[in-house]
Amino acid sequence: MPGRRAVVLLSGGLDSTTAFGVARAEGFECYALSFDYGQRHDRELDSARRVAAALGAKEHLVLRLDLRAIGGAALTPDIPVPKGGSGAEMGTGIPVTYVPARNTIFLSHALAWAEVLESSDIFIGVNALDYSGYPDCRPEYIEAFERMANLATKAGVEGRTRLHIHAPLISLSKAQIVRRGVELGLDFGLTWSCYEPRPDGRACGRCDSCQLRRKGFGEAGVRDPVATAG
Amino acid sequence: MPGRRAVVLLSGGLDSTTAFGVARAEGFECYALSFDYGQRHDRELDSARRVAAALGAKEHLVLRLDLRAIGGAALTPDIPVPKGGSGAEMGTGIPVTYVPARNTIFLSHALAWAEVLESSDIFIGVNALDYSGYPDCRPEYIEAFERMANLATKAGVEGRTRLHIHAPLISLSKAQIVRRGVELGLDFGLTWSCYEPRPDGRACGRCDSCQLRRKGFGEAGVRDPVATAG
Repeated sequence: MPGRRAVVLLSGGLDSTTAFGVARAEGFECYALSFDYGQRHDRELDSARRVAAALGAKEHLVLRLDLRAIGGAALTPDIPVPKGGSGAEMGTGIPVTYVPARNTIFLSHALAWAEVLESSDIFIGVNALDYSGYPDCRPEYIEAFERMANLATKAGVEGRTRLHIHAPLISLSKAQIVRRGVELGLDFGLTWSCYEPRPDGRACGRCDSCQLRRKGFGEAGVRDPVATAG
Repeated sequence: MPGRRAVVLLSGGLDSTTAFGVARAEGFECYALSFDYGQRHDRELDSARRVAAALGAKEHLVLRLDLRAIGGAALTPDIPVPKGGSGAEMGTGIPVTYVPARNTIFLSHALAWAEVLESSDIFIGVNALDYSGYPDCRPEYIEAFERMANLATKAGVEGRTRLHIHAPLISLSKAQIVRRGVELGLDFGLTWSCYEPRPDGRACGRCDSCQLRRKGFGEAGVRDPVATAG
């Protein structure tokens, strides 16, 4: 069914890029949505722009969000980022890098844009395994958001369409995500995962996100094209 | 139970001001949340600031949102506002003043702030009767958002608390809202409802929001302290 539109949440990392690849492979015309929310570095948004262009996004919208004014997370510059598997994304408890309600805020904007575009499909690269500490990466959360979204919108109320939140990576391991991306022919050299890039432009290799990425590429037996320190 | 914190969504209109009054009367320490989303006029935010100050908000956060970039609604300056009961809020169909997913976006930010504040209470002045055309003003929508929110957050996942979305006006008529506000001792002279204020600073008296307001005050037998043309 060519020409069906999908809104794809795109951070520029491995997961959202793969989710974009899946949406494209399923024949959707993709509208990429990224957020400038006072991240620690611009590298992430640069990657999102390059991925959107490389994968042929029909449009790429970068919305500014005032998340820093709300406070409370390590991915904006006020709270230190954990290193060396000190808990967090490595599997125990809810990480300090968890941004309160972030996916809910991101999906809400995707929902608004989907409604304007008359699209009934939103893609998000959440993953329940590697990010088990994030409440808003779990299948039951995604299902509850989808249910709410279908009550929130014109299309849902008028019964014209049923909005679907696609989370194609939700039950995959990082290694499986890497393999899926390779199958889809994605250039992971465009993506960016590191929370604290080095002054020379390389990924730090130490933050939890770098460690997860290294483990994923290692287990998949694929070379990571992104230059990493250490 | 003094000192319980609540996040109160505050537009500066009649309904959100009354919802704030209810939260305060229930003993909550109120954190007011408003949005600067490219509204047609600043008057609304000025009113929100005055109401927050008058009602003793512990903090008042005004977040910028890029809704204009998403498009699709008459309350940002690209689409004309309807006048004279031409459909819209007067009861038939979904109005062009409906902003796609607006309450979902607003509530998502409230949810993030509530999580940072360790609050489990959010107040929103939605009203299902006068705004029957808005999908995101219905009780089933509010319930679905609450359910999703309890799956989205640390507190919900850890079972520490159960987040509650309070919509104390949801089944009231505009006249009942006016009476409730009078009982609560609110100064409605601080509020603002008009979509298109006159150059002399008076409310237009013609837009759907002015008409609803006039009907509400009229039926309640209360004089509206806000100066209105016509």
